[in-house]
Amino acid sequence: MNRFGNIFSVTTFGESHGAAIGGVIDGMPAGIEISTDLIQKELDRRRPGQSDIVTARNEQDKVEILSGLFENKTTGQPIGFIVRNADHHSADYSNIKDLYRPSHADFTYSAKYGIRDYRGGGRSSARETISRVVAGAFAKQALKTVGIDICAYTSQVGNITVNKKYTELDLTAIDSNDVRCPDAETADKMKSLILDVKKNGDTIGGIITGIIKGCPAGLGDPAFGKLHAVLASAMMSINAAKGFEYGMGFDGVTHRGSEMIDSFISKDGKITTLTNHSGGIQGGISNGQDITFRVAFKPVATLLREVRTVDKDGNATVLKAKGRHDPCVLPRAVPVVEAMAAITILDAWLANKTVKM
Amino acid sequence: MNRFGNIFSVTTFGESHGAAIGGVIDGMPAGIEISTDLIQKELDRRRPGQSDIVTARNEQDKVEILSGLFENKTTGQPIGFIVRNADHHSADYSNIKDLYRPSHADFTYSAKYGIRDYRGGGRSSARETISRVVAGAFAKQALKTVGIDICAYTSQVGNITVNKKYTELDLTAIDSNDVRCPDAETADKMKSLILDVKKNGDTIGGIITGIIKGCPAGLGDPAFGKLHAVLASAMMSINAAKGFEYGMGFDGVTHRGSEMIDSFISKDGKITTLTNHSGGIQGGISNGQDITFRVAFKPVATLLREVRTVDKDGNATVLKAKGRHDPCVLPRAVPVVEAMAAITILDAWLANKTVKM
Amino acid sequence: MNRFGNIFSVTTFGESHGAAIGGVIDGMPAGIEISTDLIQKELDRRRPGQSDIVTARNEQDKVEILSGLFENKTTGQPIGFIVRNADHHSADYSNIKDLYRPSHADFTYSAKYGIRDYRGGGRSSARETISRVVAGAFAKQALKTVGIDICAYTSQVGNITVNKKYTELDLTAIDSNDVRCPDAETADKMKSLILDVKKNGDTIGGIITGIIKGCPAGLGDPAFGKLHAVLASAMMSINAAKGFEYGMGFDGVTHRGSEMIDSFISKDGKITTLTNHSGGIQGGISNGQDITFRVAFKPVATLLREVRTVDKDGNATVLKAKGRHDPCVLPRAVPVVEAMAAITILDAWLANKTVKM
Amino acid sequence: MNRFGNIFSVTTFGESHGAAIGGVIDGMPAGIEISTDLIQKELDRRRPGQSDIVTARNEQDKVEILSGLFENKTTGQPIGFIVRNADHHSADYSNIKDLYRPSHADFTYSAKYGIRDYRGGGRSSARETISRVVAGAFAKQALKTVGIDICAYTSQVGNITVNKKYTELDLTAIDSNDVRCPDAETADKMKSLILDVKKNGDTIGGIITGIIKGCPAGLGDPAFGKLHAVLASAMMSINAAKGFEYGMGFDGVTHRGSEMIDSFISKDGKITTLTNHSGGIQGGISNGQDITFRVAFKPVATLLREVRTVDKDGNATVLKAKGRHDPCVLPRAVPVVEAMAAITILDAWLANKTVKM
Repeated sequence: MNRFGNIFSVTTFGESHGAAIGGVIDGMPAGIEISTDLIQKELDRRRPGQSDIVTARNEQDKVEILSGLFENKTTGQPIGFIVRNADHHSADYSNIKDLYRPSHADFTYSAKYGIRDYRGGGRSSARETISRVVAGAFAKQALKTVGIDICAYTSQVGNITVNKKYTELDLTAIDSNDVRCPDAETADKMKSLILDVKKNGDTIGGIITGIIKGCPAGLGDPAFGKLHAVLASAMMSINAAKGFEYGMGFDGVTHRGSEMIDSFISKDGKITTLTNHSGGIQGGISNGQDITFRVAFKPVATLLREVRTVDKDGNATVLKAKGRHDPCVLPRAVPVVEAMAAITILDAWLANKTVKM
Repeated sequence: MNRFGNIFSVTTFGESHGAAIGGVIDGMPAGIEISTDLIQKELDRRRPGQSDIVTARNEQDKVEILSGLFENKTTGQPIGFIVRNADHHSADYSNIKDLYRPSHADFTYSAKYGIRDYRGGGRSSARETISRVVAGAFAKQALKTVGIDICAYTSQVGNITVNKKYTELDLTAIDSNDVRCPDAETADKMKSLILDVKKNGDTIGGIITGIIKGCPAGLGDPAFGKLHAVLASAMMSINAAKGFEYGMGFDGVTHRGSEMIDSFISKDGKITTLTNHSGGIQGGISNGQDITFRVAFKPVATLLREVRTVDKDGNATVLKAKGRHDPCVLPRAVPVVEAMAAITILDAWLANKTVKM
Repeated sequence: MNRFGNIFSVTTFGESHGAAIGGVIDGMPAGIEISTDLIQKELDRRRPGQSDIVTARNEQDKVEILSGLFENKTTGQPIGFIVRNADHHSADYSNIKDLYRPSHADFTYSAKYGIRDYRGGGRSSARETISRVVAGAFAKQALKTVGIDICAYTSQVGNITVNKKYTELDLTAIDSNDVRCPDAETADKMKSLILDVKKNGDTIGGIITGIIKGCPAGLGDPAFGKLHAVLASAMMSINAAKGFEYGMGFDGVTHRGSEMIDSFISKDGKITTLTNHSGGIQGGISNGQDITFRVAFKPVATLLREVRTVDKDGNATVLKAKGRHDPCVLPRAVPVVEAMAAITILDAWLANKTVKM
Repeated sequence: MNRFGNIFSVTTFGESHGAAIGGVIDGMPAGIEISTDLIQKELDRRRPGQSDIVTARNEQDKVEILSGLFENKTTGQPIGFIVRNADHHSADYSNIKDLYRPSHADFTYSAKYGIRDYRGGGRSSARETISRVVAGAFAKQALKTVGIDICAYTSQVGNITVNKKYTELDLTAIDSNDVRCPDAETADKMKSLILDVKKNGDTIGGIITGIIKGCPAGLGDPAFGKLHAVLASAMMSINAAKGFEYGMGFDGVTHRGSEMIDSFISKDGKITTLTNHSGGIQGGISNGQDITFRVAFKPVATLLREVRTVDKDGNATVLKAKGRHDPCVLPRAVPVVEAMAAITILDAWLANKTVKM
């Protein structure tokens, strides 16, 4: 299952060291004006080599759109696209051909398929997320036409957390530093931590916060297609994600119901809520407030130091990774989180058009 | 979208105060011997009125299987089933006909559909989970034949947490108390807290931990169908769920990669891991270790005290709930978590048969 | 896969001699006023025992709607429904427990599932189409609100064919005779043929013509979801269907392109076509003209005479069917064809709302 | 919906005059040895310019496989592929920018999407079938490993029909002539007819017969996923298809049931049937006999002569097509029919692995 989404969907393909990464976007609404610059800009936010806290793999990640656009507008037809892989050093991986890297997908792919493309992690590489960013960039442009905006930012790295609510932050400043944390002071500390961890050949995790603004009431489905359930699935499908919560999330469990309900009030002739502990979704359906969620990312498993493991025959051995790797995925995961949110919301937006004749 | 699952799926229907709750299970493997007693037993774990810490609504929740069984075995044909609603007090809800209960689905359903069955919360009632428990009971029995066991337990209520790892608990003792916490001492404290909260007309949330044992390596799909992404979607679709994590989850973000990797070792001629920080899933695919996850549930929104809200025209008003309600959903959510896990794993198990000719 | 449809769908269950036939309708648009009388009326057109040219099995086929309606309107929630089986004579089938009836599904079900419910043909019985008729009756009522009407009629039985175009027939007269052929004279001949065939313990096939009126331009999808491809799948999934064609169909292959194109003209300020050889669909998308199609049904395989066959061990034997059977399925298949067309068109109608923002 | 198939699927993209045609094959079983030569060979059978009875558009249609293969074997990961468009003469289409070609998709695309890429027919061009042929070539190679063979041939062009059963033909001779009819004498007559029609600027239709050999009993699903229903949908989704039948199809309606049943017999210790009127499928499930079906193709709508039509404002006008066009699609549709059959059968084959634990 390499497809995400129902009415609006993306199907992806590509391995880290194959010819190209790409996909097909299906169900893109017709007549939307598309800026390919904006698509490339999103890819640039995700691309390796953008700063000294991410992998040094040198990829320009230029996207080629192969179909579905006519005179800069979407036609309602599927959008095929590819991004060529350029800077793959497959030789760096010959030593893992018969080894299983700890906490990577080498062992599980072999167990499942009986064969694996070990070069650069093959299909399990986060280069697959390129396709998500492209699809997300289309979705964002469609959502923009109806006033929906999506952003995400690094809110925690290791023990360093942003201690302000998102409403107190300048969300236009997310890209103003390498960490993608809109609080400059905290961003500095996060960067120092990442550099420190990197120096030790180690890695570190963190949390990304996502905010969806302008979403009308009504998106999402009551039972299995609850908007937050789909968001959870979208986010947890991103490489290295370990947890998802929305609204008050895990913290809410220690509170009383009386502290957590969002009273309805009337304001400017519209029904709204006094608070937003719910995170913008009630009964699985958006209520018109900001949708807020958080995604936990583990410290990635590729360490630039020796680790114990076994080969395919079970013989104990020691592995030291070569290659170029991220000490912390958060900075580059921010555009992926945004992309998956955009895909999810556009799909829900279109589905919501079908509940009445 | 009232269906969950691809190859093995359940499609559900039914409102709180309608004639019946029910569904269709599709893709159930043929030739599995089914105990209808075991199905009813699971429903009994979920049913209202089972103890003084859950709602007093008096429902026997007797399931009627309408198809798909022949001489006690599954035939591979769809399984239709219904559970009649008996003890609905619709009159208790006439006062909310034109009101929006805070943090309930009243407002969002009205916004989405322009119409809603307000009696007992209609479709947004957790009675919908009856159908999940029935489907889960079928899935559990199929999984049993291949050695896969699933259980869940209440690991936190409010601030009271089980301070032992799941491996230190007697998981056969989950049903030995009303809270469904296998640690008797903690269970007592949890129960006291729930009773206390109930006395105040308030509610409280908590966390359920799920454990899947005996799952072979190979279940799950690399990209969007990562096993934990599907589990996340399954769990977050349960009423009142606010967060999901697996393995080290949110706690893992503060650790270094070197503390978190699970080294491969050889043991009894099989490749296994020294630790299980990964939670039994690597690269989205099960690795043969126990799968561990946690689900956060909010304190439910129905308080037996006065709350501020508005009516459909935006006029401020005060609401005091009648009806019979749960002060804490955790005890009754345990079988639902198990059911959703079982559905997810069986679906993944069957899908895994298709990756080779 | 016991589900048909994407946005609007029905999932069915039930065996011939099980407790009930039923299903879940998902994606029904909200706010549609529903007449349950009209649903029952459609079931009455399909039910056994309605005339002397159909099976004598005595079923009233009363439908019970279990959810999704509130004050006679659809709520947008799934609609569960059941029809109890009443008059099953399972004893009539004990002789086929270990036999394979020729051209029935006994052998193939056993080969596939390793188990089969042989009573009354189990799941392969045409009683499964009850659920389609119920879903179709909902779809018809939704389509009515946007001016789309669907009808079907028996246009051929054996060698007896209606020699008029559908535009020359009174389509309101379809139900005025037992055969469901709106041409009274031809209907008489058809009925005589069926009675004659029945007397000989034999069966006969025929063709049903379907007409969809009022369908706007734009329904259907360009590639795999061509409207006629979905209609083909819908029709061919009906028991005993052997062929499908639309527009000029098979007859068109002998004509030149110059004889077959439908020239566009302007009429009353609207673009229309001079002819309708295309059958209302061009490039897989409806063009606003009447959609016309034909479905071939084989003579059913249950003969009331001796036939050669083998038992499950391959031993040659002779079988003489007991039970009550249709000498010709056409009269009762007419409402099923209409139902499947209605489900298909409503699904396409809703999907078409999603091609633009 | 630009995807076909469930477990094994292909998602396609591309317009006639866009940068490329391509797609993603998902669910390809792992470990299958793939000959890219065989893939190219199938594309060569479909490509334009291969003879004087097909369009002269000069495309080499070289496929580039971008992922999913490792050391010539499938890895179980998605297979991305593209075929660049080279010889497009978009200028030939500037005259139809604001016109609706009769019986083409111009009008319906405009009605549906409000925008269309008119160059070469855009997405409605049969160049889309390139992607089907690529996916089909993968499916064929997978099916070969389990002994399933698929072929198709031109059995009728206009009034000229092959008067032998498929069992009397040498099916290895299908590609021995331009028409792809294994009966040389008939092929000559067909070719003469096509040349004659072409000379007159006209077009002609015909019928393609498909044969699937080696298919085990058990493929297909009882209700909506009947094997012939999926085949019908597959075939009817091919450009210009107007009808589908299997086994005795439309001809069977004039026969008595007693003439049409396929008696079971025991032969060489296996249960088989004396005849195969059923076309290899009973109750929607393959019975182990040859699967036989026929697809009707209309004479294509592009005539090299003047035709009446209207422009987008409804003004009457006359159109004479430029460009290079097929006088008869049958010869090039043969590999597309085979491809769609292969995709359908592989998907059913994999699904059949999931009906038992």
